[in-house]
Amino acid sequence: MGNPRIAIIGGGIRGRIFAETTHHHPAADLIAICEPDPGRAQQLAGELGVPAHDSIEALLATGAQIDAVVVATPDFAHEKPAIAALEAGLDLLVEKPLATTSAEAERIMAAAERGGGRIVVGFENRWNPLFAAVRRQLRADGHALVSQRALLQDTVFVPTRMLGWAALSSPAWFLMPHSLDMATWLSRAEPVEVYARGVKRVLPSLGVDTWDRVSASFAMSDGSILDLDSGWVQPLGKPSVFEFRFEVETEADAFVLDIDDTGVRRATAERTLGVGPLPHDHRGRPQGVAADMMRDFLDAVGGADLDLPGAEHGLLITRAIEAVHRSLETGAVQQITS
Amino acid sequence: MGNPRIAIIGGGIRGRIFAETTHHHPAADLIAICEPDPGRAQQLAGELGVPAHDSIEALLATGAQIDAVVVATPDFAHEKPAIAALEAGLDLLVEKPLATTSAEAERIMAAAERGGGRIVVGFENRWNPLFAAVRRQLRADGHALVSQRALLQDTVFVPTRMLGWAALSSPAWFLMPHSLDMATWLSRAEPVEVYARGVKRVLPSLGVDTWDRVSASFAMSDGSILDLDSGWVQPLGKPSVFEFRFEVETEADAFVLDIDDTGVRRATAERTLGVGPLPHDHRGRPQGVAADMMRDFLDAVGGADLDLPGAEHGLLITRAIEAVHRSLETGAVQQITS
Amino acid sequence: MGNPRIAIIGGGIRGRIFAETTHHHPAADLIAICEPDPGRAQQLAGELGVPAHDSIEALLATGAQIDAVVVATPDFAHEKPAIAALEAGLDLLVEKPLATTSAEAERIMAAAERGGGRIVVGFENRWNPLFAAVRRQLRADGHALVSQRALLQDTVFVPTRMLGWAALSSPAWFLMPHSLDMATWLSRAEPVEVYARGVKRVLPSLGVDTWDRVSASFAMSDGSILDLDSGWVQPLGKPSVFEFRFEVETEADAFVLDIDDTGVRRATAERTLGVGPLPHDHRGRPQGVAADMMRDFLDAVGGADLDLPGAEHGLLITRAIEAVHRSLETGAVQQITS
Amino acid sequence: MGNPRIAIIGGGIRGRIFAETTHHHPAADLIAICEPDPGRAQQLAGELGVPAHDSIEALLATGAQIDAVVVATPDFAHEKPAIAALEAGLDLLVEKPLATTSAEAERIMAAAERGGGRIVVGFENRWNPLFAAVRRQLRADGHALVSQRALLQDTVFVPTRMLGWAALSSPAWFLMPHSLDMATWLSRAEPVEVYARGVKRVLPSLGVDTWDRVSASFAMSDGSILDLDSGWVQPLGKPSVFEFRFEVETEADAFVLDIDDTGVRRATAERTLGVGPLPHDHRGRPQGVAADMMRDFLDAVGGADLDLPGAEHGLLITRAIEAVHRSLETGAVQQITS
Repeated sequence: MGNPRIAIIGGGIRGRIFAETTHHHPAADLIAICEPDPGRAQQLAGELGVPAHDSIEALLATGAQIDAVVVATPDFAHEKPAIAALEAGLDLLVEKPLATTSAEAERIMAAAERGGGRIVVGFENRWNPLFAAVRRQLRADGHALVSQRALLQDTVFVPTRMLGWAALSSPAWFLMPHSLDMATWLSRAEPVEVYARGVKRVLPSLGVDTWDRVSASFAMSDGSILDLDSGWVQPLGKPSVFEFRFEVETEADAFVLDIDDTGVRRATAERTLGVGPLPHDHRGRPQGVAADMMRDFLDAVGGADLDLPGAEHGLLITRAIEAVHRSLETGAVQQITS
Repeated sequence: MGNPRIAIIGGGIRGRIFAETTHHHPAADLIAICEPDPGRAQQLAGELGVPAHDSIEALLATGAQIDAVVVATPDFAHEKPAIAALEAGLDLLVEKPLATTSAEAERIMAAAERGGGRIVVGFENRWNPLFAAVRRQLRADGHALVSQRALLQDTVFVPTRMLGWAALSSPAWFLMPHSLDMATWLSRAEPVEVYARGVKRVLPSLGVDTWDRVSASFAMSDGSILDLDSGWVQPLGKPSVFEFRFEVETEADAFVLDIDDTGVRRATAERTLGVGPLPHDHRGRPQGVAADMMRDFLDAVGGADLDLPGAEHGLLITRAIEAVHRSLETGAVQQITS
Repeated sequence: MGNPRIAIIGGGIRGRIFAETTHHHPAADLIAICEPDPGRAQQLAGELGVPAHDSIEALLATGAQIDAVVVATPDFAHEKPAIAALEAGLDLLVEKPLATTSAEAERIMAAAERGGGRIVVGFENRWNPLFAAVRRQLRADGHALVSQRALLQDTVFVPTRMLGWAALSSPAWFLMPHSLDMATWLSRAEPVEVYARGVKRVLPSLGVDTWDRVSASFAMSDGSILDLDSGWVQPLGKPSVFEFRFEVETEADAFVLDIDDTGVRRATAERTLGVGPLPHDHRGRPQGVAADMMRDFLDAVGGADLDLPGAEHGLLITRAIEAVHRSLETGAVQQITS
Repeated sequence: MGNPRIAIIGGGIRGRIFAETTHHHPAADLIAICEPDPGRAQQLAGELGVPAHDSIEALLATGAQIDAVVVATPDFAHEKPAIAALEAGLDLLVEKPLATTSAEAERIMAAAERGGGRIVVGFENRWNPLFAAVRRQLRADGHALVSQRALLQDTVFVPTRMLGWAALSSPAWFLMPHSLDMATWLSRAEPVEVYARGVKRVLPSLGVDTWDRVSASFAMSDGSILDLDSGWVQPLGKPSVFEFRFEVETEADAFVLDIDDTGVRRATAERTLGVGPLPHDHRGRPQGVAADMMRDFLDAVGGADLDLPGAEHGLLITRAIEAVHRSLETGAVQQITS
């Protein structure tokens, strides 16, 4: 039996990482890029020597043999390609959040039931070795959690220049799935209730009608509390386009993770910037958490037995972020059903 | 006319700072220490060469001439000495919070009305030159606020070893007045609504029946949001007994203040600790924000025209922290009346 | 007897701090500013309500009663006004370094012998409460030192835009007196030998013929080693115009002082900057180490018995920095005579 | 043709990393562990399912087919096994430094000439993605260097508890090869001259007769300067067993790398510690720079064309550290021949 055959749906920043990682993987074959923008599709597909299609439906219509697909379309546009892939019986890696409504998430899961493929949701921070080290220590100690608190925010570059579809998402949809997934993965507890507040002022004035910032206070199933803040209006002069600080407090210990701070800084005549690893290593291979996650997905498609975040968890995160938005709109505390 | 004559009510850690500062001030006279613990009273009064009394009532009964008093008793024990001083027509510096119920705060304010003395509430962080610098920049720029977020917490040393009366207070009463005062002072906005969550598990198991940690989400009068977290169960191995991180986000800028981080660290064979300024300077004079605040209070009693935090503001903070506790107990959003 | 009467020689950035501090001091009287630039002289003198003179000689010629002067002229221009003041029997606070040749320093000291006034050299970091706290801990512990290591550098702003006379100084003359003074003050040891290297490339290309950076390796009288680096070509986009990191290692402990890092940062649309205390406090009084040093000098002139850095120490520092420059030019190890 | 067949010489901490990495590599076969300590040899070999020998000579005597070996013996004990391997025509990865005398290094290189195998010297920091990112930026910009400055030091744990042979090495032999290699790799310049100072007091008093700390001032071939400090007496209470701070200054930019600071901290009841990645990833594979270097070595043995640090460079580093020790002993500036 040969290498698993992989198609990437979405040729943006993330799709490129997944495509390049597959291209470099010794035990997987990239077979197509599906991307509606013809220029972007040709560029990426041409670089990697595979055909481009404008949609997964077009690819499936060719009758090509495929084992798995990655859906790296915008937040709100996961359902259609995911269902197409799953109904074809393919394995699926889908970017977080699984979907931006729980109804969509449930339809995706129903398609997996029908087709028999597996769903992995791209909660890539699980591949950050620092989060993993903290999790290992928490498990080893076994102390009950008291609280978690996280700030994950972007500069205004992300909603105004990087994403064309920010008004159809929010800092809660785009960022909180990361911090909420970490909170559940570190604690083994689930969010059961949320109260949220937000501000919607700066981005609307820039023509992007969504929340500037969202603060969410969660009750967790183990009796601990969780505070998540996410925003999209930090100034462009920050050392990094994102800021991610995560704090965990147990009955005995306290952990602080400054994920965006690599300890390396560069000052130029204009400003000081953080320096992180390059997107590719010295041998041209993609590096970073998204590439590492993708390699595990490829190995899992190839038969490896790995513990990957699945659809049930993806649905829970979607329900929790839905509840955040309901609380923002109603001003009332919201229950989260699991 | 001579120097203002000052008595200190409460001979604990804080009372000592205020007493020593008065002792060293060139234009104020310390005339008595009032402290019910005879050993502590004699120790401090003896060092500074003034008489000790067991209460302000005993001092007033001597007929001594007094211009002002400082009330540095535990959080919940401000009302009685404050009212005694104010009814005698004295000026008053009272530790934060003004009181731990709004009814007490209002009775204190009524006593000031009757007696004619002024009330200053000890929100000492206004004397931190870093908060002052950020406030000046905020005022100069005039950008609207989007959000504020603060973490002010102590190690478990404070409720279990430093304070004998922690079970009669909480991290919200002991710590949040500081962070909430800063939020109002930096923004000129007032808290109008709050939702709070907490955990009560570790401290009760240590015999101190109060909250381990409290998270409070405030709506502010200017439409911005404010998240305050305070707790009392951080591990003893932290570099500093307290941690204070404050974040301010405007439409244009972002400020981060790591107040506990002086940039100086000492590693020993056992651990690494933060190093801050000594409690006294090279000439033996108290230094730090509490001493600087006290010097301004002494100058104000002596006639200087200074902008000091007053009773109306102290009442607002008390009402807000009351609302935090109501929300903790009811699980419901609480309005804050100003 | 009235307040000490003080004149400030040099109306630049530093002279202004000393003048304003005197102006605000309750027990000292500012009586004149001496500054050759008429516009600058009138501006500062006018603000503070005192006469301006173009030189100390002109002031002395008026026959005004004076008790002490501060010499805040450029590094290389201390001798003439210092000797004029000392020969008139006045007390003197002179900016560091005492002089930029040991011959000048010795002539200044001879003038003090003749006139009877005292010399204080402005090693202002001794008034930094963080250095003072570390020194107190070192004294309390009594552990022998192994090494000290310091980096004190400025952005290229200082030699190219702030100072008009940078080509007549160097990063070693302008900055190393601070770090070397701290090394001696913390350790009680003296420098006995030095080897130095430097680079002279960037500043000459910008029309300022001096060293870009100087590295000096000192042997200390207690057998410990000391590495000092200072430079003037850091990029303008640094968070602060200066960087000062000081490390002390004893047989038992290690201290690290990041003096320029206040823990407060501001991000704007363009860049991220450090935020430090404002130059004046909320009551308009100068604040910071230079002002605190000046207040002690004023009190000492008024009769207080204070331990201030004197001329013998100033001469040692000048000899050591002379030896640094001799080593730079000869490539050989240089002895430092004390 | 099958996978390259690999033997590991030295079963200590480092040998274990190389052995496990080979064991997990899909395209290389671990065939033996050579380690004189029988318990340690059996333990590691047993875990990985390969035979143990007490020396490379014993292994070679079996006539086993081998393609390459890794020499991970103590600093001073590289020559014998390296020459044995090279004379047998094998490829060699040898831990840094190549040797602790240039005579040994030259004899190793002569053996490679005779046998035809390749030598790779284990300067593993080249595999740190942060150093690599800085190097890429330096290359892209092309600005001339002004200075480099690095501190690489260990707590006293390393010479007193981790290494049994510290008295036969020094902080200069054990640590400076790392920082000096980085300085040459980032700059493309070579060290041409050095002046060094040191302290030898604490470790001798603990029964380890070597330097506590060494400071070395290098002139580089491009006219820039380089200051390296390394020591072995930092207190045990530091957050990490090592500290590595590297600074690079060009005509235009400045880089600071705090390599030991991952941004993650854990506070316990006793102390606060840094948290770094675990030694193995979630799939049990070794991770970190040593493992990444080893994987490249294995791929190179297998035929990949990779740019790896070779013997000529290893010899230069050995000559430079020899010169550091000559300078320490003579007190004179030393030339470094390349």
